[in-house]
Amino acid sequence: MANISSKPLILITNDDGIFAKGIKELVKAVKDLGDIVVVAPDKAQSGKSHAVTLDLPLWYRPGKVDDDTRAFKCTGTPTDCVKIALFKILERKPDIILSGINHGSNSSINLLYSGTMGAAMEGAMHNIPSIGFSLLNFAPDSDFTTAGRYARIITQEVLKNNKKPNLCLNVNIPYEDPENLKGIRVTRQSAGEWTEFFEELYHPSNHRPYYWLSGDYTNFEPNSEDTDEWALANGFVSVQPVKCDFTDYDTLESLKGWNYMGM
Amino acid sequence: MANISSKPLILITNDDGIFAKGIKELVKAVKDLGDIVVVAPDKAQSGKSHAVTLDLPLWYRPGKVDDDTRAFKCTGTPTDCVKIALFKILERKPDIILSGINHGSNSSINLLYSGTMGAAMEGAMHNIPSIGFSLLNFAPDSDFTTAGRYARIITQEVLKNNKKPNLCLNVNIPYEDPENLKGIRVTRQSAGEWTEFFEELYHPSNHRPYYWLSGDYTNFEPNSEDTDEWALANGFVSVQPVKCDFTDYDTLESLKGWNYMGM
Repeated sequence: MANISSKPLILITNDDGIFAKGIKELVKAVKDLGDIVVVAPDKAQSGKSHAVTLDLPLWYRPGKVDDDTRAFKCTGTPTDCVKIALFKILERKPDIILSGINHGSNSSINLLYSGTMGAAMEGAMHNIPSIGFSLLNFAPDSDFTTAGRYARIITQEVLKNNKKPNLCLNVNIPYEDPENLKGIRVTRQSAGEWTEFFEELYHPSNHRPYYWLSGDYTNFEPNSEDTDEWALANGFVSVQPVKCDFTDYDTLESLKGWNYMGM
Repeated sequence: MANISSKPLILITNDDGIFAKGIKELVKAVKDLGDIVVVAPDKAQSGKSHAVTLDLPLWYRPGKVDDDTRAFKCTGTPTDCVKIALFKILERKPDIILSGINHGSNSSINLLYSGTMGAAMEGAMHNIPSIGFSLLNFAPDSDFTTAGRYARIITQEVLKNNKKPNLCLNVNIPYEDPENLKGIRVTRQSAGEWTEFFEELYHPSNHRPYYWLSGDYTNFEPNSEDTDEWALANGFVSVQPVKCDFTDYDTLESLKGWNYMGM
């Protein structure tokens, strides 16, 4: 079929919504590397993890990230966007899925809450190499120049050399000028915890209390040089390979004595 | 403080909502094993994965699962429920968190989408042993007798013998009469995929298309006897230990050549 492009098909999504600066900058950074299609949420979907929408129908409409990129906005979560792109919108399977560039870090256990990474993991589960990119700055008008440069380098590397169909990468990029960055480090996920505090406020008319989720992060292993948190604190772009098999193999053996228990 | 119970504190949540039969049956099954507090969603939260609510405030009110259990219903996701329980509602740290009993399977990659398991993983991240229970039947009026019996056996075992603070178990229970079950098997997560189909329907007044997410599951390894899917298909209760470190250690080494790339 002569009209099908031989260029790689690159599906791009995010969790901050199609209007976010981060996704526009990601499109700009990789635009010439393939045929780009954007399918992204029509509203902010931060903290949505790997959630899917089961209780509402989904719709999608044409959207816009720039003047000439094929783009759609969808009512669902980032994972919904990947599913509807793969099984409804796209005519062929993408060669790679890129998610981001997220406004804010998805290192350490933030990975578990991240809609950006939920989308990337969804791609990997369908055997499409997938990468989530996050910039360590929450400002809507952050400067994505350096982050875009690294997103491009890493995307090129995966398109050119990757042999693992279900590769999934969690890439976090310090908010620094390029001359202050020391390059890329391949890392593992830091162990840590969010200690939440729920500020109690009161509804102005019914006076009932309500709460905003908010908290402080504690890194359980600040001195471990192989972690994402250490890399980011020391001026490296962190690249963490991610697995969609959550089995705790170390614990599995110790539980084997349970087999047949309760018969 | 003489008025603090010496019994284990058991926090119970779910993703089907506080009104679901599964959570009432779980409370009944473990009620005499400790002091029970229920903090569960006020509405169905299936498929919410590890999502947290960042864009809306949360509230909680007294709820009811039976005549004498301390219970609260909360507006958030299952993960929100665990967080607000730990950091706002409970006076002491629970000894164990139980989530479920879910209406429907959370084996294989369903684990990644599961709100039931999102809550259990949240508990483990705070170093509280946590177990998600799921029954392989979606009917709201399912018979939970056998599932409750296994939930009790496993909860007792963890309370008595577990030494791992961040233990997390994904327990799936076939929908069978007890005499047809062969006992417990410790398993790993099956590799598989949902192939989605999006049925196209039309809004009755504006005639725009909308889509319901739906799909078929394919097990990539139906003959692997160490998997959860095999155990369940062969009459065993599946107990999968789950890890909150998603690092793909096997891939990590092969990427080490990337270190400093892009400098």
